[in-house]
Amino acid sequence: MNDAPVIALTTGEPAGIGPELAVMLAADGPVDGATSHRRVAVGDPELLAERAASLGLALEIVELAPGEPVPETQPGVLPVWPVALAAPCRAGVLDTRNADYVLETLDRAVSACRAADAAGMVTAPLHKAVIREAGHVGFTGHTEYLRDACGVDEVVMMLATDRALHAVGPDGKGASALRVALATTHLPLREVSDAVTSERLTRILRILDADLRRWFGLEAPRIAVCGLNPHAGEGGHLGREELEVIAPTLAALRHEGLTLDGPLPADTLFTPRHLAEADAVLAMYHDQGLPVLKYAGFGRAANITLGLPLVRTSVDHGTALDLAGRGLADPGSLMVAEALAADMARRGSRG
Amino acid sequence: MNDAPVIALTTGEPAGIGPELAVMLAADGPVDGATSHRRVAVGDPELLAERAASLGLALEIVELAPGEPVPETQPGVLPVWPVALAAPCRAGVLDTRNADYVLETLDRAVSACRAADAAGMVTAPLHKAVIREAGHVGFTGHTEYLRDACGVDEVVMMLATDRALHAVGPDGKGASALRVALATTHLPLREVSDAVTSERLTRILRILDADLRRWFGLEAPRIAVCGLNPHAGEGGHLGREELEVIAPTLAALRHEGLTLDGPLPADTLFTPRHLAEADAVLAMYHDQGLPVLKYAGFGRAANITLGLPLVRTSVDHGTALDLAGRGLADPGSLMVAEALAADMARRGSRG
Repeated sequence: MNDAPVIALTTGEPAGIGPELAVMLAADGPVDGATSHRRVAVGDPELLAERAASLGLALEIVELAPGEPVPETQPGVLPVWPVALAAPCRAGVLDTRNADYVLETLDRAVSACRAADAAGMVTAPLHKAVIREAGHVGFTGHTEYLRDACGVDEVVMMLATDRALHAVGPDGKGASALRVALATTHLPLREVSDAVTSERLTRILRILDADLRRWFGLEAPRIAVCGLNPHAGEGGHLGREELEVIAPTLAALRHEGLTLDGPLPADTLFTPRHLAEADAVLAMYHDQGLPVLKYAGFGRAANITLGLPLVRTSVDHGTALDLAGRGLADPGSLMVAEALAADMARRGSRG
Repeated sequence: MNDAPVIALTTGEPAGIGPELAVMLAADGPVDGATSHRRVAVGDPELLAERAASLGLALEIVELAPGEPVPETQPGVLPVWPVALAAPCRAGVLDTRNADYVLETLDRAVSACRAADAAGMVTAPLHKAVIREAGHVGFTGHTEYLRDACGVDEVVMMLATDRALHAVGPDGKGASALRVALATTHLPLREVSDAVTSERLTRILRILDADLRRWFGLEAPRIAVCGLNPHAGEGGHLGREELEVIAPTLAALRHEGLTLDGPLPADTLFTPRHLAEADAVLAMYHDQGLPVLKYAGFGRAANITLGLPLVRTSVDHGTALDLAGRGLADPGSLMVAEALAADMARRGSRG
């Protein structure tokens, strides 16, 4: 019996870099914890074989039949749950006819997770605009699609660096992952202040706390919470949301047993002394939290969706159509996303 | 003749950590380029002597007479341009009677710079509230005070890390300073979007470009400009300020000869590939730019005021009243601020 968790890797937009990242990882073999999980790609086997051949990679694509067990990960072999392209695909060239194919790979991975055929899923990038153009006009991205597919109301976007990259002590020791969750995500900046309500913060923090326990093996996760305004409002001089919304919400959640520090000025929080005392940071908005995460991550960060009944991680970059098919894309983020999903699946299954 | 630039160090709020940081630096002697400038403290000589004695530091405080040359920096000696406290001061205890003393040290340093007795000034932290309480009700901080004292309309806040700390290549090579300037500073988040006007961006970018040339020895400074919204507005889907305000302003300034990249998504810009191609970053607001700067700076970052007719740098932290007098404060930021001021003064004097 092989009890390494099965991680389903959806290969994303076929014209983007997703397929080649998958074959690059599979050809190079186990790295960064990849020995500890069984990778199965979800996508078109011919597309993957073509992409591997065009990059000169020696890779055996193994189509798995329904119910067939996913074999142990080994270099040069990529097991695939096949989903067929609707139209031929050239790297770099979008085609609305393949939009449903992309969604079908997601559905396939979600079903596998829900049936416990997979312990988690990792998503390579898709291209939102082409899916919208194909008629799914309300499509806003992976995260919302998976939220709806799983029938939950709210999910939380969290990014994490590879654990080796983030040194938490002034001496550079004590490396651990930097994790940054967002209270609001893809909103124009002028809409952010009104979107940071007590109700939203309560929902987001409860999910963050619960999922850090469930998937990250933390018994009492310590969450450091940013203020909304510069200097966390400086006692009301630079905005009153900290006094009127954030601080009272945190106080109420502490009564529920959450371990919360804040609201803290973001430029104080993201320093070694404070980060050393936090398992995750909650930033109030996208550009308060992600620039530092991406800086620290150095191309090796991944995105995690919390609040789903399954493990889902993804790369932190897009389809990079201009690079597609050329073997120039960096599989670093996908590697981190896979390792994270495997870690989460292993911890969650013990819970 | 000693042509090392004279750097006037105002010791700031007497009850805070400023005085002890000054004596700690002076006792330890030349570090990080300190050999290359002549340090002169501006403050109360008795206060500095007391603070040194209470920390057990062997330090000779040398009062300079008007017109007396500032000697070469040597360990264990601190030359001082004396300004007398109005009331005795205990570490950690604010006293409104000493508010004017703090402002007088600033005036003294500004006069010295303008008379070319000093080549630049470095400011230890002051305490805004106590100065306001003392009757200077409109006082909002060092930067605005110096702006008014110098009779200029606009200044630009820029933070920089010590150059050794910021590795720009994925291999960790190619270290250089990370510099982040702000288009808006201490505003509630909900006021930021309206404050980012074409007029403001034009003024700020002209100052940034001119001062990077003048004080940093850059002949054609490359400035990377953040968008305002997440993903720099994603083509208008997440806000229209990039399309309507930022991009047209940058286009106009490129015609004036500025080298500008952007508007770029902040979480793309703050990655090694983009940073390697920029001499400075312009963030649209405080918490978009400073968390990553402080993270990268690791306690060794400093604040620079551009747009003044003189060199002014400062520490990136506050008075830390709770630490004052205990010898626990870290002089790292002051050291970087001094070294930066000396570098700027040396380059500017060649210009």
